[in-house]
Amino acid sequence: MKLGDKIEIKTSTKIYKGTFIPSTTKDIFSLKLDNGYNIGIKESEIKSKKIIKTAKSQKPKHSCQLKQDKSLPTIIILHTGGTVASEVSYETGAVTPQFTPEELISKYPEMQKIANIKAELISNIWSEDMNFRDYNHIAKKIKQNINQADGFIITHGTDTMHYTSAALSFILKDLPKPVLLVGSQRSSDRPSADSFLNLYCAAKFIAQTDFADVAICMHSNSSDKSCDIIPGTKARKMHTSKRNAFQSINSRPIAKVYQNKIDFISKYRKRQDTKLKLMPIKENIKIAIIKTRPNMDEKEISFYKKYNGIILEATGLGQIPEKLIKTLKPLAKKIPIAITSQCIHGRINLNVYEKGRNIRQAGLLGHLTDMTPETAYIKLAWLLSNYKNLKEIKTLYQEEIKNEIEPRIIH
Amino acid sequence: MKLGDKIEIKTSTKIYKGTFIPSTTKDIFSLKLDNGYNIGIKESEIKSKKIIKTAKSQKPKHSCQLKQDKSLPTIIILHTGGTVASEVSYETGAVTPQFTPEELISKYPEMQKIANIKAELISNIWSEDMNFRDYNHIAKKIKQNINQADGFIITHGTDTMHYTSAALSFILKDLPKPVLLVGSQRSSDRPSADSFLNLYCAAKFIAQTDFADVAICMHSNSSDKSCDIIPGTKARKMHTSKRNAFQSINSRPIAKVYQNKIDFISKYRKRQDTKLKLMPIKENIKIAIIKTRPNMDEKEISFYKKYNGIILEATGLGQIPEKLIKTLKPLAKKIPIAITSQCIHGRINLNVYEKGRNIRQAGLLGHLTDMTPETAYIKLAWLLSNYKNLKEIKTLYQEEIKNEIEPRIIH
Repeated sequence: MKLGDKIEIKTSTKIYKGTFIPSTTKDIFSLKLDNGYNIGIKESEIKSKKIIKTAKSQKPKHSCQLKQDKSLPTIIILHTGGTVASEVSYETGAVTPQFTPEELISKYPEMQKIANIKAELISNIWSEDMNFRDYNHIAKKIKQNINQADGFIITHGTDTMHYTSAALSFILKDLPKPVLLVGSQRSSDRPSADSFLNLYCAAKFIAQTDFADVAICMHSNSSDKSCDIIPGTKARKMHTSKRNAFQSINSRPIAKVYQNKIDFISKYRKRQDTKLKLMPIKENIKIAIIKTRPNMDEKEISFYKKYNGIILEATGLGQIPEKLIKTLKPLAKKIPIAITSQCIHGRINLNVYEKGRNIRQAGLLGHLTDMTPETAYIKLAWLLSNYKNLKEIKTLYQEEIKNEIEPRIIH
Repeated sequence: MKLGDKIEIKTSTKIYKGTFIPSTTKDIFSLKLDNGYNIGIKESEIKSKKIIKTAKSQKPKHSCQLKQDKSLPTIIILHTGGTVASEVSYETGAVTPQFTPEELISKYPEMQKIANIKAELISNIWSEDMNFRDYNHIAKKIKQNINQADGFIITHGTDTMHYTSAALSFILKDLPKPVLLVGSQRSSDRPSADSFLNLYCAAKFIAQTDFADVAICMHSNSSDKSCDIIPGTKARKMHTSKRNAFQSINSRPIAKVYQNKIDFISKYRKRQDTKLKLMPIKENIKIAIIKTRPNMDEKEISFYKKYNGIILEATGLGQIPEKLIKTLKPLAKKIPIAITSQCIHGRINLNVYEKGRNIRQAGLLGHLTDMTPETAYIKLAWLLSNYKNLKEIKTLYQEEIKNEIEPRIIH
């Protein structure tokens, strides 16, 4: 039984048919089903396995052998999992063969004109299962390969890609080269598949600009004409299924990448001769996200007293129920508690209403910030991992570190 | 000391100067500060009060005495609090006088051409402090006055106005007349004040159409040309400060109201000869809103085991971390647990990925729904208040009751 074989698996309750694909989780047998999606079945639950059809030879079908063109930059693709994988691999039904450079370029030969492509499968996780340790793992892989590439593409499930892009923005200190996260909203069995344009634009942007920061590269709109380069700390998935699900929140995108041109829209960090350092997020940090709402019971806060920090998703400009201010005031002396807005768009302003001033006096952070709740969550976890003094953490939370706060409008 | 007097109040720590305005909370003394905002000071904390300037006579300044024009419909404005109040009252500095019909129309004489206006101050609450009992109070006031008016305008703080509009949509069963919620994003000391257009469009829409449902009436865009009529269960505040903060999510607005015309955009409930019944939300219902996220500790769920229900803000199409499915499965047999998406836009679809199917098998609700987390929260509280059987509640959660689920795309 080898990778790519068509297999039938029986458990006590079900029969699965699909293509045998590599699994990075021990004791899990992975299959790509005929509909293009992957499942994992515990080895212990498997009653029987049977080969239905032996895989064809994995020799690349196209003639484009990987010639290293020294005039072109080198891009390393680090593959972490998600729909973008199942798209790329759809034709052969298996993941790994696609992720040899030969296979990738045989599928997307246009990419060879842009850069020398290398690829490595570093995990195979649905993005909703990602944890802080996975961010550190990706960052470590980038550091290991920093001298072997002119830039990196991280393929990633879209669900939490904006959490990861925010995390990598903070973890990768003094990054000398670009790191672009690319996902896919539609599997390649649909005519509306989006993976190629997203990968192509990311490669083009890395190869043809002097950008050196963490960003997300995804469709600008529902047509297949361009991708937006969105700052890693300002991105958010804003639609469950659309190809242009990712938006730049409270900030313009850095650039738009078309087939034939790149338009820069806002300022960006340029390539520089700095030495990459890692500032990882501790794996055991616990941050609450609490959404304030009508009929909320303030006792809810008591559960989170032992957490390392709290992000409140408040309403409007940052208002919270009156009764909550009292509950949070003593806790804010012990752990950082920060205000973000359920509105998502717009800035927190705790000066407009009297109650906002009470919220500030209670020691709650966030005044004049415009971070998404997700970026605020990651930033607070990162600060708590890398700084010990609560006062310093509170000060840094309010300050722009990695473009996560747009230049402030001073009221 | 009478309403409208300019007062100086001393507490042990501060001195406040402002206009004496009515307070609906016992033992709270309310002042309108010079910047246009209201504060409440506990009577017990007040060391001294002093009149700085006596209020002018409250006699209407304009000549437009309230003539009842029998050819025009009657609109009752029920005022609950929020910025829209401080705008309307800005010229005299006090709330109540503005809310006599005479004062209101003297400020907005155009409204008299549309309808006979009556007004009542029924509470004075910042919307972030609203609870389920406040929804029942508004509903009761509507029922009491249902035969005295052709429609209702509820003025409301914007922060949680979409929670209230969803709640009233469910509570007001067989509503024969329109109920429009109107707020204001900018106080009237700013040139960008939005209250007049919002109130005017709401009155025009009530007076000149056969609409009979709960909706929000707020600016369509940043210009002062039109307002959108947004279904009460599909509205969401999407910006902390913009005048067009309210958007119709996963649904088109019902109509656009211009100064000189009304354009209907989608289907709506028409006036009918039904008898209004109230189906209130129980004041002691507790619903959790839990946002799934990287590094989430599934033990968090344990705190909410005694709640009446849980709304999960999942990622993407409705995915949650693998470890959470196991934790939630036994709990889903006892209380309703429903999936919504952090993306806000788009529909939940638990058929696309294998894991989604596991989520459905674990008994979690929400497949193919497109409710905002806020509407889902209110709907679940309302179902738990009015139905006893868990199976029935689960079935009704998935079904469209008050336009909260757009016609389903069957996959």
